[in-house]
Amino acid sequence: MKTQRIVLAARPQGPVTPEHFRLEEGTLPALQEGEVAVRNHFLSLDPYMRGRMDDAKSYAAPQALGEVMIGGTVGEVIESRSPLLQTGDKVVGMLGWQTHGVAPAATLRKVSDAIALSAYLGVVGMPGVTAWYGLNRIIGPKAGETVVVSAASGAVGSVVGQLAKAQGARVVGVAGGSAKCQLVTEVFGFDACIDYKSADFKAQFKAAVVGGIDGYFDNVGGMVLDACLARMNAFGRIAVCGLISAYDGQPMAVTQFRSILVNRLKVEGFIVSEHPELWPQALGELGAAVAAGTLRYRETVAQGLAAAPEAFIGLLKGHNVGKQLVRLID
Amino acid sequence: MKTQRIVLAARPQGPVTPEHFRLEEGTLPALQEGEVAVRNHFLSLDPYMRGRMDDAKSYAAPQALGEVMIGGTVGEVIESRSPLLQTGDKVVGMLGWQTHGVAPAATLRKVSDAIALSAYLGVVGMPGVTAWYGLNRIIGPKAGETVVVSAASGAVGSVVGQLAKAQGARVVGVAGGSAKCQLVTEVFGFDACIDYKSADFKAQFKAAVVGGIDGYFDNVGGMVLDACLARMNAFGRIAVCGLISAYDGQPMAVTQFRSILVNRLKVEGFIVSEHPELWPQALGELGAAVAAGTLRYRETVAQGLAAAPEAFIGLLKGHNVGKQLVRLID
Repeated sequence: MKTQRIVLAARPQGPVTPEHFRLEEGTLPALQEGEVAVRNHFLSLDPYMRGRMDDAKSYAAPQALGEVMIGGTVGEVIESRSPLLQTGDKVVGMLGWQTHGVAPAATLRKVSDAIALSAYLGVVGMPGVTAWYGLNRIIGPKAGETVVVSAASGAVGSVVGQLAKAQGARVVGVAGGSAKCQLVTEVFGFDACIDYKSADFKAQFKAAVVGGIDGYFDNVGGMVLDACLARMNAFGRIAVCGLISAYDGQPMAVTQFRSILVNRLKVEGFIVSEHPELWPQALGELGAAVAAGTLRYRETVAQGLAAAPEAFIGLLKGHNVGKQLVRLID
Repeated sequence: MKTQRIVLAARPQGPVTPEHFRLEEGTLPALQEGEVAVRNHFLSLDPYMRGRMDDAKSYAAPQALGEVMIGGTVGEVIESRSPLLQTGDKVVGMLGWQTHGVAPAATLRKVSDAIALSAYLGVVGMPGVTAWYGLNRIIGPKAGETVVVSAASGAVGSVVGQLAKAQGARVVGVAGGSAKCQLVTEVFGFDACIDYKSADFKAQFKAAVVGGIDGYFDNVGGMVLDACLARMNAFGRIAVCGLISAYDGQPMAVTQFRSILVNRLKVEGFIVSEHPELWPQALGELGAAVAAGTLRYRETVAQGLAAAPEAFIGLLKGHNVGKQLVRLID
């Protein structure tokens, strides 16, 4: 069977361009005992992939040159040599940027058709659990507190804000552009959302958090992080989940570090894959909320594997709304 | 009775100078019921006082202009209208930069003569408890881990390192000048101490923490903080206790903030006076260790109240070795 995949062709020295990727054709290898073959329906694109493209130390070992790009996928089993999965089962895995993949059945998670498959890459997947962990395990919002979320219209940020609202917090989003901000308040129900591209962002932001900030869920770093540090209340908590403003080759200086001491803050970085013991609880809560219609999500979907590099570059520039996906089926 | 006190004469706009203080003479007020009069033997000088001199938001309300400078003291009760304390009792309090003070007996803590009175302002006082809290409650070193301490020869840093060594950690100090570094290794028993004033500080520091840093007790911020952030191991902990490099009117940018995410660090600011429930345990352990001779300390002592401003300015410049005190008795 003919397959297609996208490999890392070169490491970026600065902004990512399409030349850093290469589309290759191949055939599906024969299955070993215990393995299954999967036709991927959706590929997840996520900011963390940018770090893997560098040779430098990031969360994990760098993505190897010439190898298929890492990435979460959801799809359908088309052949099985494992008693764990049957043809037709829907599975979530890390099969990467390719139309089909082969993997041990034990590394895949069977999911139900009760919600849209794409949701398992977003609100009921890694981004949703990321939001759940950072909010509940690091920020721990109390009713009446103010929580700020950057990249608020994104796959993680939109879940953070909705979960914080459900716990009684006042939630202020930060996003790029008026369309995203409108989505954040009208669809995701945040109390306010400030456009970081506005000329008077600082004044607008200050007015929106006039009582100070108790929790900040940071997806971006840079200027927004500094603006939050400058407005944190005593004993505030900052979950450092992403620094997308620094991913694309930019150094990042923080000028308001002193707030950590002055306001006795807790600042904690985390990677949700290192807390597997919490995924069942988190996925259970998120899936139930989606099925009940109380947790909303949005997706930006590129069509076809060849569109993945441009979609990823757009993600790094903030062009997506909600979860960025690539649909691999027609 | 004639008394002397030093008041805040002006708020500094940049480095502190003697003109920001004014020596005044006065008389001891008559005691109200429940109050005692104290002749101060020693005045404690501490970096936190710099923050109080500003009008801006710091840990606490600013020091009022024209009022006696805030500060910890140890002295002897010379008159009492309280059943809690008798003439001759030795007491620790916050009577400020003055030769004598009047306070409700309930705000003073009676201490024993078994160790030198000055130690109650340092190793068995606020600086010691600060070291104890940041090390035990934030860093929590495990045997074999590497702990870095800045301002390592100081009242806080010297205790941090000795406590960490006692728990089996490898301890690397950072201090200014070869004399301080020698004290840190030879008297306080650190495994190594690097002089941040050395031209090749970065290379020396890198070599001293070649296996990475698991815990950093930060008293200074700035360049040393960045050097530590760049060498932190995964799941490292940073206790932010002081940012003395930024106290004296300098802004402070941190360039290695990204390490918090990449290495999943916990960074926490704290102020030890907000954790009074832990003081009895901490003071008990510290006092026992001093009495047993296993916890060492050094002091720099200025003579006479009029010397306090210059001694404080020297403290901000790192001229002291160990705890900076002012002796108020002959």
